[in-house]
Amino acid sequence: MRKWTFAKGHGTKNDFVIVRDRHGTVRIDDADVRFLCDRHAGIGGDGLLRVTKASSIPEWEGDPDLWFMDYRNADGSIAEMCGNGLRVFVRYLMEEGLASGESIPVATRAGLRTVQPLIDGRLRCGMGPVRLADEPVTVTIEIPHLGPQGSWQATAVDVGNPHAVCFLEDSDVSLVELDLGREPIWTPADRFPAGTNIEFVEVIDERHISMRVHERGAGETLSCGTGTVAAAHAYARRAGLVDGEVRVDVPGGWVVVGLGEQEATLTGPAVIVARGETWLPDNL
Amino acid sequence: MRKWTFAKGHGTKNDFVIVRDRHGTVRIDDADVRFLCDRHAGIGGDGLLRVTKASSIPEWEGDPDLWFMDYRNADGSIAEMCGNGLRVFVRYLMEEGLASGESIPVATRAGLRTVQPLIDGRLRCGMGPVRLADEPVTVTIEIPHLGPQGSWQATAVDVGNPHAVCFLEDSDVSLVELDLGREPIWTPADRFPAGTNIEFVEVIDERHISMRVHERGAGETLSCGTGTVAAAHAYARRAGLVDGEVRVDVPGGWVVVGLGEQEATLTGPAVIVARGETWLPDNL
Repeated sequence: MRKWTFAKGHGTKNDFVIVRDRHGTVRIDDADVRFLCDRHAGIGGDGLLRVTKASSIPEWEGDPDLWFMDYRNADGSIAEMCGNGLRVFVRYLMEEGLASGESIPVATRAGLRTVQPLIDGRLRCGMGPVRLADEPVTVTIEIPHLGPQGSWQATAVDVGNPHAVCFLEDSDVSLVELDLGREPIWTPADRFPAGTNIEFVEVIDERHISMRVHERGAGETLSCGTGTVAAAHAYARRAGLVDGEVRVDVPGGWVVVGLGEQEATLTGPAVIVARGETWLPDNL
Repeated sequence: MRKWTFAKGHGTKNDFVIVRDRHGTVRIDDADVRFLCDRHAGIGGDGLLRVTKASSIPEWEGDPDLWFMDYRNADGSIAEMCGNGLRVFVRYLMEEGLASGESIPVATRAGLRTVQPLIDGRLRCGMGPVRLADEPVTVTIEIPHLGPQGSWQATAVDVGNPHAVCFLEDSDVSLVELDLGREPIWTPADRFPAGTNIEFVEVIDERHISMRVHERGAGETLSCGTGTVAAAHAYARRAGLVDGEVRVDVPGGWVVVGLGEQEATLTGPAVIVARGETWLPDNL
């Protein structure tokens, strides 16, 4: 048995197991991640955040003294970026006395990110550039059990990872009616060869939308940080907004997206709910 | 914020948040239970086990010095008994040095239960009497999307809580095909006025069955201790077995049921996976 200290936290109910490994000495393989993120047999989370110094990441070419967010999906696979995870990561740094100040830099596989703690407790994260497809890309998405009326023309958005954003006002379907228990289908299938996250958006007000998301490889989740950034920007183009902010409701809460195709921001809550010790079986 | 120490454990992936409260001084309301059992915003579990002395339970009339298993479902409601929870409860007592020996008594709302630690690490629990309906009760269960072929005649079994056990060999449907995402329907509806757990059973071998369960109020779960006892006894009557043991596979692992309508037993694993501290918001 290996005894590890851990923390658990979430941002709009996108939740993470956090393991501190300053010097990069803890060997964490896929099976360990799956064990820790198992909601019944382990601690449970959408993913694992390993808190380590950038000096322990060979591919990082910047300042080696930065904290590096080593994010893994619950299945053990590595992901470049996780918007909600970044807030939880910084909340952990702050609560553990590992970082402070008005602007906290974090090294990630998607590059350097900067996080600002706001006076009301929320955290504002730089999310890097947002690329919308120049032409409205023809991506058809179907919800199988709805038949033909479950089809939308989606806007393809790249926020470091791929998204396809559908607007429900283009159909007779409401957000609560959607059954996202199965993955929607897109055509042409080769438009997203590595898969895509798919957002369904309802417009509440000029600066306020609501969305649900089917995450690539994870199914429907309660929140997806990059998904809210993608949805807000697809909405902004549609509504003719070029700057300012858009509130995005998700099943797990709400966030605010700062518009900007060069450097979008994502502002939302992050909380650490537990700290403790866990024992990993040796023969996972 | 209220800081509580907790543990998390599971038996065949039926998992629990454990809170120690020897003197019964911690006030735990429904909202606290829901918070702790929330898999995204809290720690996560199928239920909460409060570890307290029987002296703090007014309705307990036996030895006040016994440990009392105060079990709550994840929604905050009180349940009399939880077979997998009982093992996890005793594993916790043993690891914390609160109980030891060949036979550990536990006070529960269903009465006194006795748990034996086995040499291989498993725990054997007395589960009290099992009452099968004398006549094969006509209970029809439908899986809506399967239509008429999704109907079975179920055996009603009372293990302190109600069960309806269906045998898949009475149909063309296999266990893996079942979609238990929605609650099955039973007729007549008033046969189980307070609802029922519903088990679907496939026979593997003479002393070996496999089951899935839809739990009352909880949906499909990875394991249900009383459900395995009910299923094994319904199977025993059908197969003409009167004593000995039956292995029952569930999605979260496997257990062994000792047959006996006066005092059934349930043997299985239990593990504590984490210990730590959590902070409950004051305004839940």
